[in-house]
Amino acid sequence: MTRSIDLNSDLGESFGRWSLGDDAAMFALVTSASIACGFHAGTPSIMLASCRMAAKRGVAIGAHVSYPDLAGFGRRTMDIDPDELYADVLHQLAALDGIARVAGSAVRYVKPHGALYNRIAVDGEQAEAVVRAVRDYDESLPILGLAGSVVAGVAAGHGLAFRREAFVDRAYSADGTLAPRGTPGAVLTDAVEAAVRAVAMVTGGTVRAVDGSEIALEFDSLCVHGDTPGALAMAHDVREALATAGVTFLAFA
Amino acid sequence: MTRSIDLNSDLGESFGRWSLGDDAAMFALVTSASIACGFHAGTPSIMLASCRMAAKRGVAIGAHVSYPDLAGFGRRTMDIDPDELYADVLHQLAALDGIARVAGSAVRYVKPHGALYNRIAVDGEQAEAVVRAVRDYDESLPILGLAGSVVAGVAAGHGLAFRREAFVDRAYSADGTLAPRGTPGAVLTDAVEAAVRAVAMVTGGTVRAVDGSEIALEFDSLCVHGDTPGALAMAHDVREALATAGVTFLAFA
Amino acid sequence: MTRSIDLNSDLGESFGRWSLGDDAAMFALVTSASIACGFHAGTPSIMLASCRMAAKRGVAIGAHVSYPDLAGFGRRTMDIDPDELYADVLHQLAALDGIARVAGSAVRYVKPHGALYNRIAVDGEQAEAVVRAVRDYDESLPILGLAGSVVAGVAAGHGLAFRREAFVDRAYSADGTLAPRGTPGAVLTDAVEAAVRAVAMVTGGTVRAVDGSEIALEFDSLCVHGDTPGALAMAHDVREALATAGVTFLAFA
Amino acid sequence: MTRSIDLNSDLGESFGRWSLGDDAAMFALVTSASIACGFHAGTPSIMLASCRMAAKRGVAIGAHVSYPDLAGFGRRTMDIDPDELYADVLHQLAALDGIARVAGSAVRYVKPHGALYNRIAVDGEQAEAVVRAVRDYDESLPILGLAGSVVAGVAAGHGLAFRREAFVDRAYSADGTLAPRGTPGAVLTDAVEAAVRAVAMVTGGTVRAVDGSEIALEFDSLCVHGDTPGALAMAHDVREALATAGVTFLAFA
Repeated sequence: MTRSIDLNSDLGESFGRWSLGDDAAMFALVTSASIACGFHAGTPSIMLASCRMAAKRGVAIGAHVSYPDLAGFGRRTMDIDPDELYADVLHQLAALDGIARVAGSAVRYVKPHGALYNRIAVDGEQAEAVVRAVRDYDESLPILGLAGSVVAGVAAGHGLAFRREAFVDRAYSADGTLAPRGTPGAVLTDAVEAAVRAVAMVTGGTVRAVDGSEIALEFDSLCVHGDTPGALAMAHDVREALATAGVTFLAFA
Repeated sequence: MTRSIDLNSDLGESFGRWSLGDDAAMFALVTSASIACGFHAGTPSIMLASCRMAAKRGVAIGAHVSYPDLAGFGRRTMDIDPDELYADVLHQLAALDGIARVAGSAVRYVKPHGALYNRIAVDGEQAEAVVRAVRDYDESLPILGLAGSVVAGVAAGHGLAFRREAFVDRAYSADGTLAPRGTPGAVLTDAVEAAVRAVAMVTGGTVRAVDGSEIALEFDSLCVHGDTPGALAMAHDVREALATAGVTFLAFA
Repeated sequence: MTRSIDLNSDLGESFGRWSLGDDAAMFALVTSASIACGFHAGTPSIMLASCRMAAKRGVAIGAHVSYPDLAGFGRRTMDIDPDELYADVLHQLAALDGIARVAGSAVRYVKPHGALYNRIAVDGEQAEAVVRAVRDYDESLPILGLAGSVVAGVAAGHGLAFRREAFVDRAYSADGTLAPRGTPGAVLTDAVEAAVRAVAMVTGGTVRAVDGSEIALEFDSLCVHGDTPGALAMAHDVREALATAGVTFLAFA
Repeated sequence: MTRSIDLNSDLGESFGRWSLGDDAAMFALVTSASIACGFHAGTPSIMLASCRMAAKRGVAIGAHVSYPDLAGFGRRTMDIDPDELYADVLHQLAALDGIARVAGSAVRYVKPHGALYNRIAVDGEQAEAVVRAVRDYDESLPILGLAGSVVAGVAAGHGLAFRREAFVDRAYSADGTLAPRGTPGAVLTDAVEAAVRAVAMVTGGTVRAVDGSEIALEFDSLCVHGDTPGALAMAHDVREALATAGVTFLAFA
């Protein structure tokens, strides 16, 4: 059986003088790139360079929208007014889309970043603000997020597509949720183990949970990282193992 | 004879908690609004509110692009790399245009702000960066600036329209250039005097220079301000005097 | 009987081109000024100008420390790491104190601003970070905040003085806490009413609560505002009424 | 003959999530660390961590003051008002000094960064603003900069000490000035060559200029870099060669 899957990664997360990760290597591995829009990372010239790389490689561009927090890299939850959040998301999406178009591509999905990603998995009011901003900008854009999130339902309620991502480097509980980062083994660091899991997830639709049980897992995209040498190696091994297993790679959006 | 003219003003220059000028009053007076794009003023929610007011009033939206300098309100010249400047302009233009479209309108021209406005009047390299960014985003967008500027020629060289603005509150030298701000009488504060001048400028195409001579002046838009009570009153009087003289008001873009 | 009281206000809250409130008028009315330190408002030159005004008027300077959030004016709660918060508070306090010293004065107390003020009234971890930063910088500096706050106990636990402020323009519940802003009558706008209350609070140590009962209220400073014409008039009337009642004005720190 | 010399480096130039250089390694090599103060790099927690490392290692702390330009890393000249620049320098110096004191040390000198460093080498007005800010904060603090700079004379005029730095990785013209970065061989990349030069500079007081002539060079500190693996290796080799030549290391301030 041949299956195809999307590999996504968070890219374009440098800022001015500061580099983060090996984007050149990652753009060659993924089919979707969630590109920072200036609120947690990414100066305009970095956004442009990232979009050009994506366009050249045929990688689908996602707007990686965030709380306005450069000093905290968008990882600090903020009690932000929904109208402000709506405008903030709209601003980031519009800026990246315009830049992507000049680079010969366009934004094809939206992935909330960091603390915003986690917040709208449980907070309906902020989820609503994000969903309305995306819908008002372009109702054909899907949101990429965590399966079972509050935002998934909110998106559906507004007629917006929601795509689920799974993680090659995170352990799952028996109920299909991610094991909390604090717990032992919650984050995988072994590239070979991750590659084996990725093949099972994509070809079998299952993953072995932390309690040893094998659970079913549905998802539209597999998230890989490239911000450390180890993460990059893991992303490489995951892709190679999937290819060897006959899986092909195709952007979800 | 009936003539029509565009009245433009710099609007949307509040930032977060801080208000600047009486935008509600000004949107009722002008035909074109140059709206700040977040680099010298304007949080996303202020950009959105400004675009909504413009759309409601039928006022043409201009992207008021700036150096990245909130603390200095974009009034400090920067030796910025042309590729960075290109991306900065593109980012601001794309963000405002996307927001304007959600508000039911679109960006119809670009006006560089403050120090950038003055710099590209004389600096060909930075002018080139600004012009290329606008052209690559949408080659149908005109640039609004100072007549005789270096940027006017650069725009022409790239097939981009350039529109000239004149000022109701600035004195002109005999050669048609603006009298430097430092010189006596360089800035008009009397609303009636400004109104009389505006009528002469629009209906007669002339202005009395600082040396007393009457000179010809060609322009496509008349710039008025609204950031002080005095400026607002002047803008009001200028519009009323023009209307009384049979002038109609029409956006240039 | 003659009593003395401190009047404090949040000042220096302009930013670059944007002005907020009438600081010149307020510096003439208060005995303590909580000056913004650049994180929610205040460019360095505004911090310096504010410190100079305070030094000239003999007004005690407080460091008005905030979350890093210019766009939100420090009014959005952030889930910030305690070590980051510790460093953020230390940075703001040190910057303002150094500037105050060049202006011929010094920081004499610390008042957390906006969302941080409210958060550390209930969050022990963030309160601890703020208190430790102040103590490590200068253990003789008191913190000014809400009576009964969690931070009051944390300060005491670290040997730091805590001073309680009361508000002339806020209604109190029968238990001595502030009536929530949403409830009817929670914010007073009548200057005369505020002035009468202020006299009762300072000379009698009591305030009439929203249920009509008269309750005892202990405090070390009375907070007045100057960010609107109405607030400024109220501050003026409050001071005048207190002076007429024989109250003298003295900084608490 | 035994001589002692100061080795200085620009450190603490990370920002939030982004790291720059190997500060841990560099703090073990240098005697003076010019630490970023938040305007071109350095969040408060990074400033604090840098000061703690400096205090632990007995490395002298310098305030590495900059134009306000995170996106441009302080490398873009700005036409900034002298009063604004005065306040900006004061703010950075005060913040770092207060943080350094909590870390058990203190700021012992000031080194302007990047574009500001170059600007005040030729611009008397901006040099005056920087010098006055340092003098008003603490007249015992020397400024570290380029020999022969305009700022050197301005400092002298205000009774402020000026210390001259030389570079191990830059070529010199026959007149003792730095060869412009654009010219061939202007920047040395060979660690051994740099080490040999450093020994000649420190023990002989001479350097071979680009035209082959040997010229005399007076300086108070030798600048080394650590922001790339190559730079770090060069700094290591320079220190080792100097030590082998009997040179000892001592902070200039």
